[in-house]
Amino acid sequence: MPRYKLTIEYDGTPFVGWQRQANGRGVQQALEEAAARFTGEPVVVKGAGRTDVGVHALGQVAHLDLTRDWPTDTVRDALNAHLGDDPIVVLEAAIVDDAFDARFSATARHYLYRLTDRRARPALERDRVWWVSSRLDDGAMAEAATALIGRHDFTTFRAAQCQAKSPVRTLDRLDVVRDGDRIVVRASARSFLHSQVRSMVGTLKKVGDGSWPIESVAEVLAARDRRRAGPVAPAHGLYLAAVDY
Amino acid sequence: MPRYKLTIEYDGTPFVGWQRQANGRGVQQALEEAAARFTGEPVVVKGAGRTDVGVHALGQVAHLDLTRDWPTDTVRDALNAHLGDDPIVVLEAAIVDDAFDARFSATARHYLYRLTDRRARPALERDRVWWVSSRLDDGAMAEAATALIGRHDFTTFRAAQCQAKSPVRTLDRLDVVRDGDRIVVRASARSFLHSQVRSMVGTLKKVGDGSWPIESVAEVLAARDRRRAGPVAPAHGLYLAAVDY
Repeated sequence: MPRYKLTIEYDGTPFVGWQRQANGRGVQQALEEAAARFTGEPVVVKGAGRTDVGVHALGQVAHLDLTRDWPTDTVRDALNAHLGDDPIVVLEAAIVDDAFDARFSATARHYLYRLTDRRARPALERDRVWWVSSRLDDGAMAEAATALIGRHDFTTFRAAQCQAKSPVRTLDRLDVVRDGDRIVVRASARSFLHSQVRSMVGTLKKVGDGSWPIESVAEVLAARDRRRAGPVAPAHGLYLAAVDY
Repeated sequence: MPRYKLTIEYDGTPFVGWQRQANGRGVQQALEEAAARFTGEPVVVKGAGRTDVGVHALGQVAHLDLTRDWPTDTVRDALNAHLGDDPIVVLEAAIVDDAFDARFSATARHYLYRLTDRRARPALERDRVWWVSSRLDDGAMAEAATALIGRHDFTTFRAAQCQAKSPVRTLDRLDVVRDGDRIVVRASARSFLHSQVRSMVGTLKKVGDGSWPIESVAEVLAARDRRRAGPVAPAHGLYLAAVDY
């Protein structure tokens, strides 16, 4: 049973998230269906991160086991053919060792979050960016973000439904960079808590729009209380950019 | 009757192009309908360039005359509110002199064309880029492009239905730049012939995929024969980026 590692891009808009839900189709399920049509056998696809409904991926990683030893290009092309009109594509397939696990072998996850801060809503990037109708202070956001970098108890930025045993995580990167009327936040860590990136971005936005002072971010982190975080930023601005192994 | 200059972004996918057609709704028409709902009067909107079906705009410019002297922010916001779910937004409204004409006063038009050259089709940028499934030689494309810069008879790169009196145009810029698996072509001129940018990109793609040598671009230009150009590149990779006055 060769194991394949897949690198996957998807538009999260039409899916209920990575995982199958009672109320609709997940990205994982679409991939499993495509793999089953390709091989004629049931296939389980396991992902590096369970993206929420509406969250996109530029480089999600997953693994699957096939009974036949297909060439990697065949796996990639056959899955893409069987994915049909679903906005999911396999960018790359590679053969990996049986010990490889997309979720547990990951050493770093990289997310990016896109905001557009201008008066007019986006016409070309609807469902691709968080639209904020007035200008944000990206310099203040960048400065505030530094308080979150490092090893901390991130209880404040954790969703109620988070299943992680510990709220302690090490945030390696949290950059805020402006390009015209677009702001990109890049976050990297070995792993994140549920909704952590969107919760951190929602808090930084409070600093950017002047509602909260820069120091408030260190204060709400120290409070370890999710009621102190800013509103969770919308899913459609978030992209799982890459996973390292 | 104050005259307003509008800067407009749109997703060309659901429209038949800038102009109204027998078979569907144009961007111009959507703007005229929004302006009529806002003012309660019929309004004519004139654009700088008539983009074809599927072509997008980051900075189309148009002008319109209103009977009342509305503040520019009101014009922008009211048009955006009345555009509703149409993927068209007014980025800016400004009061201009009566002599200003979005089409005839323009001194330069800037287009960009986006290609993605990779094995997997785009999941996130469907209808936003021209997908070419194998790697193009962007260096050869960039070199070939230089043959088109300057004042030339562009008959080779002109659509059959082009209504311009003269096929002579001065192309000020034609850059080809790669960023990862994306290639961006930037074209600037005072004005372009119908389908000129897409026809030039289609020809450069023939060089990029190795079908044609670099020198062929100068040869087909000199031939002044539209049968010698490469296939016209698809509309959904093209963006009217900006118009100068």
